[in-house]
Amino acid sequence: MRHFISTDQLTEEDIIQLIKQAQSYKSSSPQIDEQFFAANLFFEPSTRTKMSFIVAQRKLGIEVLDFNQDISSVQKGESLYDTAKTLESIGSNLLVIRDKKDDWMEELKGINIPIINAGAGKAEHPTQSLLDLLTIYEEYGSFKNLNVTIVGDIKYSRVAHSNAKVLRRLGANVSLSSPPEFQEVSGNWNHISIDEAVKWSDVIMLLRVQHERHPDNMKRDTTSYLEKYGLTKERESIMKKHAIILHPAPVNRGVEIDTDLVECSKSRIFKQMNNGVYIRMAIITKLLKEWGYINEKTIEKRNSFIGNKRIQTI
Amino acid sequence: MRHFISTDQLTEEDIIQLIKQAQSYKSSSPQIDEQFFAANLFFEPSTRTKMSFIVAQRKLGIEVLDFNQDISSVQKGESLYDTAKTLESIGSNLLVIRDKKDDWMEELKGINIPIINAGAGKAEHPTQSLLDLLTIYEEYGSFKNLNVTIVGDIKYSRVAHSNAKVLRRLGANVSLSSPPEFQEVSGNWNHISIDEAVKWSDVIMLLRVQHERHPDNMKRDTTSYLEKYGLTKERESIMKKHAIILHPAPVNRGVEIDTDLVECSKSRIFKQMNNGVYIRMAIITKLLKEWGYINEKTIEKRNSFIGNKRIQTI
Amino acid sequence: MRHFISTDQLTEEDIIQLIKQAQSYKSSSPQIDEQFFAANLFFEPSTRTKMSFIVAQRKLGIEVLDFNQDISSVQKGESLYDTAKTLESIGSNLLVIRDKKDDWMEELKGINIPIINAGAGKAEHPTQSLLDLLTIYEEYGSFKNLNVTIVGDIKYSRVAHSNAKVLRRLGANVSLSSPPEFQEVSGNWNHISIDEAVKWSDVIMLLRVQHERHPDNMKRDTTSYLEKYGLTKERESIMKKHAIILHPAPVNRGVEIDTDLVECSKSRIFKQMNNGVYIRMAIITKLLKEWGYINEKTIEKRNSFIGNKRIQTI
Repeated sequence: MRHFISTDQLTEEDIIQLIKQAQSYKSSSPQIDEQFFAANLFFEPSTRTKMSFIVAQRKLGIEVLDFNQDISSVQKGESLYDTAKTLESIGSNLLVIRDKKDDWMEELKGINIPIINAGAGKAEHPTQSLLDLLTIYEEYGSFKNLNVTIVGDIKYSRVAHSNAKVLRRLGANVSLSSPPEFQEVSGNWNHISIDEAVKWSDVIMLLRVQHERHPDNMKRDTTSYLEKYGLTKERESIMKKHAIILHPAPVNRGVEIDTDLVECSKSRIFKQMNNGVYIRMAIITKLLKEWGYINEKTIEKRNSFIGNKRIQTI
Repeated sequence: MRHFISTDQLTEEDIIQLIKQAQSYKSSSPQIDEQFFAANLFFEPSTRTKMSFIVAQRKLGIEVLDFNQDISSVQKGESLYDTAKTLESIGSNLLVIRDKKDDWMEELKGINIPIINAGAGKAEHPTQSLLDLLTIYEEYGSFKNLNVTIVGDIKYSRVAHSNAKVLRRLGANVSLSSPPEFQEVSGNWNHISIDEAVKWSDVIMLLRVQHERHPDNMKRDTTSYLEKYGLTKERESIMKKHAIILHPAPVNRGVEIDTDLVECSKSRIFKQMNNGVYIRMAIITKLLKEWGYINEKTIEKRNSFIGNKRIQTI
Repeated sequence: MRHFISTDQLTEEDIIQLIKQAQSYKSSSPQIDEQFFAANLFFEPSTRTKMSFIVAQRKLGIEVLDFNQDISSVQKGESLYDTAKTLESIGSNLLVIRDKKDDWMEELKGINIPIINAGAGKAEHPTQSLLDLLTIYEEYGSFKNLNVTIVGDIKYSRVAHSNAKVLRRLGANVSLSSPPEFQEVSGNWNHISIDEAVKWSDVIMLLRVQHERHPDNMKRDTTSYLEKYGLTKERESIMKKHAIILHPAPVNRGVEIDTDLVECSKSRIFKQMNNGVYIRMAIITKLLKEWGYINEKTIEKRNSFIGNKRIQTI
């Protein structure tokens, strides 16, 4: 794997291995014993994904180059390719990219360092998919025959399409539930109402209503959205006892989900964020290994040093 | 102490202890031997306070997550609570917050990591208060019976109110001096003119005229401000020989103080900034200890290693 | 050398020494064994120079304070001097500055830490000059009798003037080639056409057309610029076999240079960026040594540790 752009690049085995690697990183952070640099190029606002990559990189001991387009030569008209090539040239060993364009990777063919898709374009957000998978796996230990419903703004979501595909591949039964204007037409999917979904599902994967990506003429009445299509407290009370609620965040409280449910006992929303750090560590180390940058010998387990003072210089 | 929000949370003993801890950090920086993350959330411009926290954190060996609201999901309408909870979820062990709202802490009740107030709302800026106290203590070794006048834009200052209260509590005689429109009415304070203040005071605590917080109809003539209410060279020459000048900065040169006095022999303005780093180190380690994150064993003195190469890998 | 402001401060010997130091850093990064802080103050957009300084600093083990004017007290009207003095006061040991004003250093006389000019004002960009020199030196091993043509927007370039002077001083034959409105009148220089330049030169130093610094009435037809004054593929084919192409970037592709030539075999454009990191490391260590902050004993070669695990804690 040269770059990590899509979950389509991963076999079922790869995915389980990444999940287990991420889990192992929860108890002991690896430390890379050479100085590596990662540049995070975000051309759209992000808190979660960007900060999560930074924490993942720092836990691995990787130096972070925090690129800010507002104060960069992008202001002078520099292209994505020239920006990326510049960062490669000054010593970055890894690029993490979120760009608006769908064909961003076309432009980056000449880049000779690993690239990770951090939610670029409209089509894919593969590290988000993986953190969702890790969260489900931690709950159920398997994806076989799990009932999963993806709920909400499917059309404008980066993660709905790839999640639906990858979950089906892993053996889950996937349904979709969304208002007509957010329905995805491509593919052969089972569409159900939110009221059916809460009864049927082991996992309710809510999506953010992506106001900022909608055409201007689509001014929704968000107050009625919750009642018609969202997760109300009443609907939550109908869910299976063991069922869980996911959401990629940021949450529109009171739109996709009642604000009181964001941290309810079924919600794994903030756990997803925590899982994001560890799955990103797993993706980064996988890529760096495949490029021959690191191997098992150059990775040290940090926790083996805690208590004996080898780490006080961090 | 769960969070550090106000100097009211500290006893006189606490304050003296923090001051002495900060002083000790000047000669030897402690190093925490585990990897901690601090997120600095500043929703208002800051150079001094933000950079000072960053230096304090790095001197302690703490990883810094530099949150920038302009390129974050705050742009998508994410709330302060959800932003803070996100940073907690991805691994931040400490939040340093400057928000505009006065009731910001109300919103953050569900946060389960220590929070430090970095000048949020209008009412308090407790680390600024403590660095002022450290600077005065280094000068006089005590607060008992010191004559301190707080001068200028008291009404719109974050630090005037808490400084006045805490200085009185520590035994100082506190007076206020300000133009009528900047006068604070609440509390029982002695109001004097700037000409009385320079004669009487051991410490002149100047405040910044907070143009950016004034109502629009309050367009002041800043040129006459210095003559009427500010510290001119003439007034400085009348001050007691040992008296000192403080100012939280940024200084409006030629408004609160004659530009030539900013670095005069009585001025401690840049020393205050330096002291800010060490007092913030003291506050951070106090909080982390009270949360059980660190103890004396997990803190190493850095200077004991300088010269014997244990630190070259930093 | 108190501050590094201009290549005029360096003797020919100094320059060769810096070049050799930079080359040595390519195979082994030094590590400073105390905690130093560098603050990068960029008041104009920059990707290359800023990121390059950050990588240089991190390779040396220096902590980076990333100043962002948009979220700083510069927004409250704080001056360059007060900002710089603040950063000195809170513990910065080095300032790297790019400011718009030509007389920026006048203002900074009272600063007591080393300052590096990162392309401030219109007149100088000395670390860019040095990285150009390093790139030429790596190609030819000497500057004596090399034919160098500086091509393009000489008038609005920061680097053309200093490069022309320093190259002549090092023994090169320097010509200039530019459209009439970009011609530099001061100094005694040989002006040639681009068609003469490509035949005559060992080094073609292209400059960026600095649209953003031009007066408003100078609306150029950039499409004809390439044909009349730029490096087309046809002109490149006429160049000497061993000749090289330099450009400080960001490149206006299709204006100064045909887009296909940016990474052609004669181009050293991305190598220049890589060289920028090492020459900046050399400048930083030279300055820190001259200030007595470090000496050979406090610098460790990092590569001597790779493999024996002393570095895993980075």
